Amino acid sequence: MEYYSRQISKLIQELSSLPGIGTKSAQRLAFHILNMPTEQVEALSAAIVDAKRNVCYCRECFTLTDEELCPICRDASRNHRLIMVVENTRDLAAYEKTAKYEGVYHVLHGAISPMLGIGPNDIRLKELMQRLQQEVEEVIIATNSSLEGETTAMYISKLIKPTGIKVTRIASGVPVGGDLEYIDEVTLLRALEGRTEL
Amino acid sequence: MEYYSRQISKLIQELSSLPGIGTKSAQRLAFHILNMPTEQVEALSAAIVDAKRNVCYCRECFTLTDEELCPICRDASRNHRLIMVVENTRDLAAYEKTAKYEGVYHVLHGAISPMLGIGPNDIRLKELMQRLQQEVEEVIIATNSSLEGETTAMYISKLIKPTGIKVTRIASGVPVGGDLEYIDEVTLLRALEGRTEL
Repeated sequence: MEYYSRQISKLIQELSSLPGIGTKSAQRLAFHILNMPTEQVEALSAAIVDAKRNVCYCRECFTLTDEELCPICRDASRNHRLIMVVENTRDLAAYEKTAKYEGVYHVLHGAISPMLGIGPNDIRLKELMQRLQQEVEEVIIATNSSLEGETTAMYISKLIKPTGIKVTRIASGVPVGGDLEYIDEVTLLRALEGRTEL
Repeated sequence: MEYYSRQISKLIQELSSLPGIGTKSAQRLAFHILNMPTEQVEALSAAIVDAKRNVCYCRECFTLTDEELCPICRDASRNHRLIMVVENTRDLAAYEKTAKYEGVYHVLHGAISPMLGIGPNDIRLKELMQRLQQEVEEVIIATNSSLEGETTAMYISKLIKPTGIKVTRIASGVPVGGDLEYIDEVTLLRALEGRTEL
């Protein structure tokens, strides 16, 4: 990267430290940025530090937000007795996009992973258990359908069961529009196990 | 993008305005940035504005640099009578990586393209002709092997010919390691036309 001047090299280096951005993409991005109008460059730069500085966790559901209480937790029209547990804010956004879920969320910020050394105390589980002391009807576990997500789901359900609160898990099976031919065996077996009566 | 808080949405929006970064990638990048240590976030943000603010054109070859005269133009050990004309700073860097080229460069910042409305006055051609008033032995045209690059090469060679300065064009042909079977007809014909005696 010594082929570029110091400032350009520095920019390329910073950009290539981001996930999914290699040296070639970082070069392309850097020269794009150099060609952008100054105001736009400043807006990009400011958006980066502003987001980092002002974004915090919602004190109720722990999603990333810029207010003490996120818009969903603040919304009185939502069902606060129905809590969906997700791994991160992006998963929350995925369900919000469906525009059909009426309950609130709880963001764990991770999943239990013995491989990565992430235990139950490293995710927002204690905070979930605290929330359950209020009146809650059902906890829907919507962690990913990965090894870590499943482990976390099992762990949470065991933790909640004694409280008598209903615990459910989102269905796992063939995705809508999916072609059986191209779907892995584990998913096919899950779909079979989870079959429902018509 | 209303599923995220204002600051996060703003960051996602700014990131997705970059080339090759769609909404999904921008979301992934935004959450990665939110999880990065504050100092690293500030370094990234600063690198962006610093590069934009301090990078200027070298007054000799017009490459992007942070000094009045770029390191290559300042280097007395290089052959200043040999000028390679390239479309942009990335192309200059590509030739610098070979570590074999001893001459200097001239960066056009574009190529003539009637389709995009880019004429000879929109690229650094006048500046090239001015440089040729000093003692120059050879001008190597290394614009891309695209329609625009070829047009620009033809235009420049016609402009320089009357001055008596030698004008050459980098060879076009089969790339090293390339398999003839997979190479397009135009390249194969070029390689044939440009054959050299062994």
